[in-house]
Amino acid sequence: MNDFVFHNPDKVYFGRGQIEHLPEELLKYGRKVLLVYGGGSIKQNGIYDTVARLLQTSGIEMFELAGVEPNPRYTTANKGAAICKQENIDVILAVGGGSVIDCAKGVAAAAMTASGDVWELVSNRVWVTEALPVVAVLTNAATGSEMDTWAVISNQDTNEKIGLGGSALIPKAAFENPEYSFSLPTYQTACGAFDIFNHVLDNYYLAGDATFDMVLEFQEAVMRTVVKWAPMAMRQPDSYEARANLMWASSMALNTVLDGGTVHGCACHAMEHELSAYYDITHGHGLAIVTPRWLKYILDSTTAPAIYRLGVKVFGIEEGLEVVKGAEKAIDAVSDFCFNTLGLTATLSELGIDDKHFKDMAEHACFGGSISGPKTLTPSDVEAIYRMCL
Amino acid sequence: MNDFVFHNPDKVYFGRGQIEHLPEELLKYGRKVLLVYGGGSIKQNGIYDTVARLLQTSGIEMFELAGVEPNPRYTTANKGAAICKQENIDVILAVGGGSVIDCAKGVAAAAMTASGDVWELVSNRVWVTEALPVVAVLTNAATGSEMDTWAVISNQDTNEKIGLGGSALIPKAAFENPEYSFSLPTYQTACGAFDIFNHVLDNYYLAGDATFDMVLEFQEAVMRTVVKWAPMAMRQPDSYEARANLMWASSMALNTVLDGGTVHGCACHAMEHELSAYYDITHGHGLAIVTPRWLKYILDSTTAPAIYRLGVKVFGIEEGLEVVKGAEKAIDAVSDFCFNTLGLTATLSELGIDDKHFKDMAEHACFGGSISGPKTLTPSDVEAIYRMCL
Repeated sequence: MNDFVFHNPDKVYFGRGQIEHLPEELLKYGRKVLLVYGGGSIKQNGIYDTVARLLQTSGIEMFELAGVEPNPRYTTANKGAAICKQENIDVILAVGGGSVIDCAKGVAAAAMTASGDVWELVSNRVWVTEALPVVAVLTNAATGSEMDTWAVISNQDTNEKIGLGGSALIPKAAFENPEYSFSLPTYQTACGAFDIFNHVLDNYYLAGDATFDMVLEFQEAVMRTVVKWAPMAMRQPDSYEARANLMWASSMALNTVLDGGTVHGCACHAMEHELSAYYDITHGHGLAIVTPRWLKYILDSTTAPAIYRLGVKVFGIEEGLEVVKGAEKAIDAVSDFCFNTLGLTATLSELGIDDKHFKDMAEHACFGGSISGPKTLTPSDVEAIYRMCL
Repeated sequence: MNDFVFHNPDKVYFGRGQIEHLPEELLKYGRKVLLVYGGGSIKQNGIYDTVARLLQTSGIEMFELAGVEPNPRYTTANKGAAICKQENIDVILAVGGGSVIDCAKGVAAAAMTASGDVWELVSNRVWVTEALPVVAVLTNAATGSEMDTWAVISNQDTNEKIGLGGSALIPKAAFENPEYSFSLPTYQTACGAFDIFNHVLDNYYLAGDATFDMVLEFQEAVMRTVVKWAPMAMRQPDSYEARANLMWASSMALNTVLDGGTVHGCACHAMEHELSAYYDITHGHGLAIVTPRWLKYILDSTTAPAIYRLGVKVFGIEEGLEVVKGAEKAIDAVSDFCFNTLGLTATLSELGIDDKHFKDMAEHACFGGSISGPKTLTPSDVEAIYRMCL
């Protein structure tokens, strides 16, 4: 069991009647706000109007950065940083899903640098300790960006998609109204749900130290919640209970409550980021394709007990089987969840991806070295896993 | 499901090698520290020396308030507040279990008032928004005071024991080294474990809204962890795993991660505080005596499903029974945990308590009204529950 620090000062307002507190949270930092949002769905579902009205009646001046991409680009973040510098913005307000919040974090960090270029921070692996404050209004349960230290930024010129981290990137406040995710399409709901699931699985003990039961119990609780409520959210998009469970699971998965004492891994995330970077596919879908193959690839006598436990605790697989056999059943259950329950297509081929860039992608995923985790993955391991996904 | 706010800025350093960060946390607030501790066990187990050395080598001036009682008295807190005023103390350092941290919080709040009297705040039910900063070094997994907004203060003159709450009472930082609880006697370990368990059970949904699965799952995870690891900590006091699981469970139980969407209850705590106030018994022991009787008293067709679910999820009781029968089995399992597994005596009589003050205690427990929860309890209900405990 490793030593750890838990510190998450983000103030989360959760529920139907909380958005009225938005002005008081913004006014802690000033009166000039940069609103960051995506393709305009918040204009269709009324959230934009609600936010604009609240800001106006509170004497807050609103600037806008619209059109954030599903895999947010550094060029978009840089546009936002330029607005911040020009207009002396006090606080960034992200209204959207993980992409929008990630972009807002990129803006917040870049605005504090001389160059205003977020890619400079990303490519130099800077740990961000200075940024404009970010407040988030969440519309999609998925990335956990509403409570975490990370932003993932894409560079369309170089086919790179890389995480930017830093204590200053934790939002100051987050508003989570499950109703704001009612209008989310089924496909996005499924992809978001699997993103949450994988955030936990990527950090599950697998080949490590299984003695911090309190954390394992919490991890399994989040995965069970996703497995139970994602299908309901897909069948009945306006189920408040289903949306609330997914939204709170999203925040819990990455606010470090689940990290205590474990080795922080990110094998599937590292491999998937290359798929999104090269082919601009939806992150959660890429994860769903990669994850069961990764589990198969790393399965051996050292990882089997944890994979089997996952199957028992999360998918209700029977106890008492031979451990590798049990682990195989667990992997089947993960596959079934991805490709039947969530209805995501199971292969890269179906997304029009072939092996053309696998070698380069594998090198990138390993950042010139290897991916640590329950099994250390070299570029040739990663390439083999990509091939299993074809 | 109710709306809620989650906000807990406490920075927790967890593990063996973390105490070295103590000076940097204290120096955020100044160089004059009031060390608050209890009966001197920290001098026997070396923690006092460690802390004193760290402070001295960092140029921190240390004042002392020693001898905090197991049920901390307002008079002791007032002594601390007087030191703070006289010496211009910058930050309070609590080294001990919940009683010591609670007392430190009382000191921190009283030091900011004109009178310096914590009982004035307690008796006026003031929600504390201004207090000196508190940093905690935890030596006992129990009360959750290391991460929560509460302090429970006793008045020996009036036989009162009342909670003082406030956002300013959340510690700024907490140091949780499981090794610091190795020297805890078996009885204190058992009492602490049941305090944690009851913090969760008092807020379990019981007769309320069971649709926030994510929170229920977390609640059950904490209770399972206590049920699993308390016996190990009692058998093998230097088991790092057992102590770590109990310590992190203690913090999780009351840092509001488990509160989301639920109705915050405190029926058993309200009833037990009167036992401690009148008879100075150990809080967790009083809770263990009261809790199974309370469950029996509130058992009916509305509460049975939740009590049965508790039995299934936490104690592994078989599914599919008739629901009231299942709930009865669950209550038996709670009793068995209290009186067999934890080895606590089962009746008030064994602690030398008779019914002499029951009427007054019941009135006090209801604060002149009633106790809300799955069943509203009037003074006559409370008196009946006390009688079941004889």
